Amino acid sequence: MLDWGRRYDRSRLAADGVAAAVVTLMLIPQSLAYALLAGLPAQAGLYASMAPLVLYALMGSSSSLAVGPAAVTSLMTAASVGAVVTQGLVSYTEAALWLALLSGALMLAMGAARLGFLANFLSHPVVSGFVSASGLLIAASQLKHLLGISLQGDTLLHLLPQLARQLERIHLATALMGLGAVGLLLLARKGIKPALRRLGASSMAADLAAKAAPVTVLLLSITLAAGLQLAEHGVRVVGLVPQGMPPLTLPSFSAQSLDVLKELLVPALLISLVGFVESVSVGQSLAARRRERIDPDAELRALGLSNLGAGLSGGFPVTGGFSRSVVNFDAGARTPAAGIFTALGLAFAALFLTPWLYHLPQATLAATIMVAVLTLVDFSVFSRTWRYAKADFTALLLTFALTLLAGVEVGLVAGVGVSVLLLLLRTSRPHIATVGQVPGTEHYRNVLRHEVITHPAVLSLRVDESLYFANARYLEDQVAAAVARQPALRHVVLQCSAINDIDASALESLETIDQRLRAAGLQLHLSEIKGPVMDRLNRTDFLRHLSGRVFLSHHQAVLTLAGPEPI
Amino acid sequence: MLDWGRRYDRSRLAADGVAAAVVTLMLIPQSLAYALLAGLPAQAGLYASMAPLVLYALMGSSSSLAVGPAAVTSLMTAASVGAVVTQGLVSYTEAALWLALLSGALMLAMGAARLGFLANFLSHPVVSGFVSASGLLIAASQLKHLLGISLQGDTLLHLLPQLARQLERIHLATALMGLGAVGLLLLARKGIKPALRRLGASSMAADLAAKAAPVTVLLLSITLAAGLQLAEHGVRVVGLVPQGMPPLTLPSFSAQSLDVLKELLVPALLISLVGFVESVSVGQSLAARRRERIDPDAELRALGLSNLGAGLSGGFPVTGGFSRSVVNFDAGARTPAAGIFTALGLAFAALFLTPWLYHLPQATLAATIMVAVLTLVDFSVFSRTWRYAKADFTALLLTFALTLLAGVEVGLVAGVGVSVLLLLLRTSRPHIATVGQVPGTEHYRNVLRHEVITHPAVLSLRVDESLYFANARYLEDQVAAAVARQPALRHVVLQCSAINDIDASALESLETIDQRLRAAGLQLHLSEIKGPVMDRLNRTDFLRHLSGRVFLSHHQAVLTLAGPEPI
Repeated sequence: MLDWGRRYDRSRLAADGVAAAVVTLMLIPQSLAYALLAGLPAQAGLYASMAPLVLYALMGSSSSLAVGPAAVTSLMTAASVGAVVTQGLVSYTEAALWLALLSGALMLAMGAARLGFLANFLSHPVVSGFVSASGLLIAASQLKHLLGISLQGDTLLHLLPQLARQLERIHLATALMGLGAVGLLLLARKGIKPALRRLGASSMAADLAAKAAPVTVLLLSITLAAGLQLAEHGVRVVGLVPQGMPPLTLPSFSAQSLDVLKELLVPALLISLVGFVESVSVGQSLAARRRERIDPDAELRALGLSNLGAGLSGGFPVTGGFSRSVVNFDAGARTPAAGIFTALGLAFAALFLTPWLYHLPQATLAATIMVAVLTLVDFSVFSRTWRYAKADFTALLLTFALTLLAGVEVGLVAGVGVSVLLLLLRTSRPHIATVGQVPGTEHYRNVLRHEVITHPAVLSLRVDESLYFANARYLEDQVAAAVARQPALRHVVLQCSAINDIDASALESLETIDQRLRAAGLQLHLSEIKGPVMDRLNRTDFLRHLSGRVFLSHHQAVLTLAGPEPI
Repeated sequence: MLDWGRRYDRSRLAADGVAAAVVTLMLIPQSLAYALLAGLPAQAGLYASMAPLVLYALMGSSSSLAVGPAAVTSLMTAASVGAVVTQGLVSYTEAALWLALLSGALMLAMGAARLGFLANFLSHPVVSGFVSASGLLIAASQLKHLLGISLQGDTLLHLLPQLARQLERIHLATALMGLGAVGLLLLARKGIKPALRRLGASSMAADLAAKAAPVTVLLLSITLAAGLQLAEHGVRVVGLVPQGMPPLTLPSFSAQSLDVLKELLVPALLISLVGFVESVSVGQSLAARRRERIDPDAELRALGLSNLGAGLSGGFPVTGGFSRSVVNFDAGARTPAAGIFTALGLAFAALFLTPWLYHLPQATLAATIMVAVLTLVDFSVFSRTWRYAKADFTALLLTFALTLLAGVEVGLVAGVGVSVLLLLLRTSRPHIATVGQVPGTEHYRNVLRHEVITHPAVLSLRVDESLYFANARYLEDQVAAAVARQPALRHVVLQCSAINDIDASALESLETIDQRLRAAGLQLHLSEIKGPVMDRLNRTDFLRHLSGRVFLSHHQAVLTLAGPEPI
């Protein structure tokens, strides 16, 4: 903050002010809607958007990230809070609050321990599959508000059969309101900007109109619902929203708090990781556009503080949201002060506008969410990943399917687990090529791909992978098999140019290979060992006991072992 | 079996017969002792040694492996059966039986699916740490029998404080018997062979005497206990052992069977893996001595069948044991028929010798176990691994400590988990070297290690690791940092000679790097891409959209980009 505070001037103030106004307009319906998605009263969305914005502005390293409730973390909140609440240990709002505090504490701890790199273990296919499935789950979960029916559960397996049974109970007025709002919002997204430009509006005005569309739809449906007294005809509305600033909420400690915390620990960790990945991706892509960089560990700490703030002010877990940040950036936010101004705008809304929300139909909020999450669903990644790598496709598909069918937590954990497992599998049977000399050169290439010179007494093997526990025994087998095929063999040379590491298990296997070859009257040689690998081997007895020698270049090894006149 | 059955003759029969006699002598006390360790009545040890030996002989691929109860799997049986029994769902013997059946089924399934390679995920340091800690745990668990006190629990945290409190309650006669047996067995192991040779005995006779030592100690203590009526003085003895062949035991199905199976699934999986690793290691090292090979998947199936047999004949989980197999091999077993003869010997013991076991003190059996497991404990591996690789040492120490303090299952699972995590960590920050031309050659080496030629407009980076999700973002950061240090830069060339794979996440990162460089007016080039990696990249749009070019050799890239006259 000190950094940008000192250079703050009127032009920056103006830019930040405009951005804040635009973001505030967008955030009012979005915050209410995400609170609904998280299963909380509408005002929780407003509360969770204020303190985090200010706290992030004080600590964060991105100049345009806007922190608040986001679609995927709100869905995850609903799933995990719902599971804890059914055990009867704690009330729903209190559990949401604990979850925000716990996520905040975890993020702070990870930031302090510089564990930001842990987010890298969420591979791209896993994140894609998870986000697309979450988008679909969110849309499905909003159908109950949109159609005025009652659906329970967190997975498609729960939601879809209920939907099928309740199709005839759809509440007509609610559905008309909801689907109408969806239609208007889609129209606003696709058609309003070009249409206004064609009518002669300036680019900026057209842009502003497009961004104000959700608020306009909101106002329209409030007017409609109030005028027609729709609440009395069974259309569920937001109802009484308490007027005022967020309360200071401290969770009450009891004998059961520890049980609640235990139950929430894994969900909080997953929400932290997902929130962090979303936030950092958005932050990095915005920073790159201005040739800035962000510090992932500083981001973790800022997000941690934001979540603590959200928890203490009656909210629920927050993160740097994609849409709000992009809008903030596009509207010209120059410094984190834009976030503080947005918080002021939302405080104004909380103080004075909440009575106006009484007649807001829940179906309109559901429509806002559904249109927003459509951007999360991306099916093109399936075919792209299938073409590129089957292992990645497996992880993608599994994460996608399990998230939809077994829930967000199972999907995410299984996705990470299977990514790691597939990595181990892929490297557990490395490519081992028999190589020979390309005539007239000192290069050695795969005998299956090139016309090369080989010698009956010398076997040259190139292993295209670091040697470690999962592939050590495979190497033993492959060497044994290769030796068995070549009776005149006297020397085996391992070309180590692609071996970046040899762990203790692999060293054990190399010793075993050496002993077996020696017992059969053969020698094992190594060539082109990399510096760091050689440094480490020198700390053991292995090279001293090796039956053969170590050569700097593979060509030198073959020259020496095959004699001066290659056959 | 067909293979060796056809070639069976009198010389092989004689060799197998002698080996079987030696192994039978050794197995009688060992089987009783391991049953005691597993918490089962003594006869279960005899039962579990018969059917498995025969079934393995029919199916197994090793000619000298002897299958039966083993120290570590017996300890694991006691820990997991104990945990299930305290829930009151099932009796102890029935749970042991279910465990054997479940392990057998899992092994058969893994063998059928050719999943034998899964055992490779138990890295060498994890297995070492686990086996050493198991040895110590087994020794600690036998102290109660050895000293005639009562100790409960599966970890040192449970056992040691109780031991300290009960030191004064040691039963003197039991302790004398137990410690005496330990002394005699140690003496027999170290001193008896050289002493007999010095007295003029033939090598074979001395060897046989050493192997018969446990049986001798057993007979001695039975005689002593019977003569002095020690049972009446509070020395616990084996007592009445039912005479006869193993019964056919089928587990009873009930409403709770499914709960029991669920509880036992993870323990059974761990016992299967550990048993398989032990068995295959023994089998491979014995096979190598005779230039034979064994098939891990066939071994899995044979062990699976053996465990089913053990479960159906009143036993508990079995595996190819180290000591019994080595003794079998050393005694000259030529074919699996030796196993069948040993089973006959044990059947004879079960039919006619069990009345003689009435007076056998449990302290003697405990002594047999303690001396046997001493060979499992190996502290030298700690210093060796520390010198070689800190990551492997971490896995070793963690597995060792957790196995001792939190139990066998926690230790093993944590060990595997941490091995994988450390692998990810190690490869998540790969070595990235800036390289330059070695003067007068076409070789490029690390600028920090060698005197090389570089160009201000061309940055050559060599990444010493496959690119995948855990290190993809690190590469983005490193390229950005390197570019920021060199303002005159026009071209970045990634030398890909050590990159064996690029997964979907890494491809995404390469695209990001390319876009960022292009936006800053730079070009990204690749050189020396390996065949399989190139094949895969060609299936995407990446190379078509790349700002720069792909070069076959790095030298060619630098020549082209830096112009014909290097500075």
